Amino acid sequence: MWKDNIRRVVPYTPGEQPARTDILKLNTNENPYPPSPRVEEVLKGFDAKMLRRYPDPEAKELVEALAKRFCLEPEQIFVGVGSDDVLAMAFLTFFNGKEPILFPDVTYSFYEVWASLFGIPYRCPALDGHFQIRPQDYLTANGGIVFPNPNAPTGAALPLAEVEKIVAGNPDSVVIVDEAYVDFGAQSAMGLLDRYENLLVVQTFSKSRSLAGMRIGFAAGSKELIGYLNDAKFSFNSYTMNRLTIACGKASVEDEAYFSETTKRIADTRERMKQELFQLGFSFPDSRANFLFVTHDIVPARELFEALKQAGIYVRYFPKPRIDNYLRITVGTQEETDRLTAFLKKYLKDRRV
Amino acid sequence: MWKDNIRRVVPYTPGEQPARTDILKLNTNENPYPPSPRVEEVLKGFDAKMLRRYPDPEAKELVEALAKRFCLEPEQIFVGVGSDDVLAMAFLTFFNGKEPILFPDVTYSFYEVWASLFGIPYRCPALDGHFQIRPQDYLTANGGIVFPNPNAPTGAALPLAEVEKIVAGNPDSVVIVDEAYVDFGAQSAMGLLDRYENLLVVQTFSKSRSLAGMRIGFAAGSKELIGYLNDAKFSFNSYTMNRLTIACGKASVEDEAYFSETTKRIADTRERMKQELFQLGFSFPDSRANFLFVTHDIVPARELFEALKQAGIYVRYFPKPRIDNYLRITVGTQEETDRLTAFLKKYLKDRRV
Repeated sequence: MWKDNIRRVVPYTPGEQPARTDILKLNTNENPYPPSPRVEEVLKGFDAKMLRRYPDPEAKELVEALAKRFCLEPEQIFVGVGSDDVLAMAFLTFFNGKEPILFPDVTYSFYEVWASLFGIPYRCPALDGHFQIRPQDYLTANGGIVFPNPNAPTGAALPLAEVEKIVAGNPDSVVIVDEAYVDFGAQSAMGLLDRYENLLVVQTFSKSRSLAGMRIGFAAGSKELIGYLNDAKFSFNSYTMNRLTIACGKASVEDEAYFSETTKRIADTRERMKQELFQLGFSFPDSRANFLFVTHDIVPARELFEALKQAGIYVRYFPKPRIDNYLRITVGTQEETDRLTAFLKKYLKDRRV
Repeated sequence: MWKDNIRRVVPYTPGEQPARTDILKLNTNENPYPPSPRVEEVLKGFDAKMLRRYPDPEAKELVEALAKRFCLEPEQIFVGVGSDDVLAMAFLTFFNGKEPILFPDVTYSFYEVWASLFGIPYRCPALDGHFQIRPQDYLTANGGIVFPNPNAPTGAALPLAEVEKIVAGNPDSVVIVDEAYVDFGAQSAMGLLDRYENLLVVQTFSKSRSLAGMRIGFAAGSKELIGYLNDAKFSFNSYTMNRLTIACGKASVEDEAYFSETTKRIADTRERMKQELFQLGFSFPDSRANFLFVTHDIVPARELFEALKQAGIYVRYFPKPRIDNYLRITVGTQEETDRLTAFLKKYLKDRRV
């Protein structure tokens, strides 16, 4: 049967995207602020006639803007359709050995999905009791390493010196640091790139640059690593970034002032949100991301998840070992956060907690 | 060494995308006409603030517009970042057996690249002396079948009855018909879908819909085939289609009148171009695509390629067995085609052919 030759996989399930517009959507870590006004200018000024032409397969304008922003060479930058596309291509390209790759037991759930899709063996060292990565767990034989920093869905960040221990201790492996949330207050590993040719740093425009709807992610690394990644990409799909994406992405990267202001505002709201949730009986790892990963002293996460949903507030709940009493809640605007905490305060009071 | 675990591949080389704007670009089969005016309206009216939100991972608006256009169910449509993305995912999903897959010896060169990337064994039955696919070559044991119709880079089309022979003769294989160029005058296999659950028909917005710069391709098939394809896609990248792509793609599909008019105009120009090139001593398979695949009775293709390039006219030359004396020339507007034929006429005269 033709069905015998089919690759069967259990796909990743993304967070819900409700059609209703009255939902307070704190379930997919989107940015509450719009993208840089320069993005809108690009859209309004774009000549639709140019769409008949293929885009630049190397997306040079965007690559060069990123290289400039990070003081790297353009040959050190790879761009893709969101950081998921970049990570998928990196798994396919770099994790091609026999030894298992390593990633934390509690982490971005797509890692396991990509490993299964490409038939990559993997092992998952456990986070410690405070949901922290233990660098020493990553100093054993492996076929590659990947972890987010800050980690998802915990929000906990590893100090740069600890990240460096992992990179330096694995000269025979490619080490991928997935920095989807780094711009909200963690230390980036970009500064290590000039010393480690086995390091790949992946970032995204979906969170700190408010462009989840545009699909842009990128990786930075040694010219050699990026070269292999490009070879694989050009063996999969030559033209991944469309003309609008390249133009809007460039405009976003060049608006540093807007980027700094909006990421700072979110970090400030997050710190206030920590205090308020703590006072309501929640505890959580010390997040450096645009979300908190919270558990309540008394009320089960599942119950809160359902109550919030009833009230039109969407958060993320993962029914998985170790984390099934936690909620991942995105940091919105201050007003949105106030609506969330006001609801929780009333709910807990009515429940006589 | 970390380099030992890297997947090494020889990537596909796309046609040149010159930065100069005075080039007559007949090398990548782009459409000479702009996309539907409705696409421009969508762009101008788009609310950039919405880009902070993830797009619909199922791209429902676009999928539903396509389903309606082809009188299929939405569950029978899969969309991707150009037909290359769709074909790459289809290779990964469906060609997972031990027997070699089959595709013609002279065909879209990306098939070989995807097979290599994913480690899929393959065998390439030879086209006949007139560059035609021989259906009987595809009635042997195989792990899957893929061919373009019309074929690329030859432009020759297989009649629907011959396509059906291949599909019907391979109930144990997935048969992919790559219809990138079908809208310029060949017979689509879409009408076979209700009878063959092993058939996948792939099309693109890059040629007939003038949206190469937007990156949209799609596949149509049985609900079961499309379901497996979606599972693989959701294991690779949940959000491939960005918000603008979904909106512009829908607008394009809904403008049937513009589509009919522009594809007819290109087919008319192609027929005139055939007559003119024939009179200049060229021969070619009878193209049903938006390009001609031509060889000259006397002057080598390589020489013509260089002379055209010198004159600012880019066409495609493939230095490969069997086809290294051919040029693939895109059908442009009537004026562009006139510029091409005028140059060739003068060149051949000056050379005293």
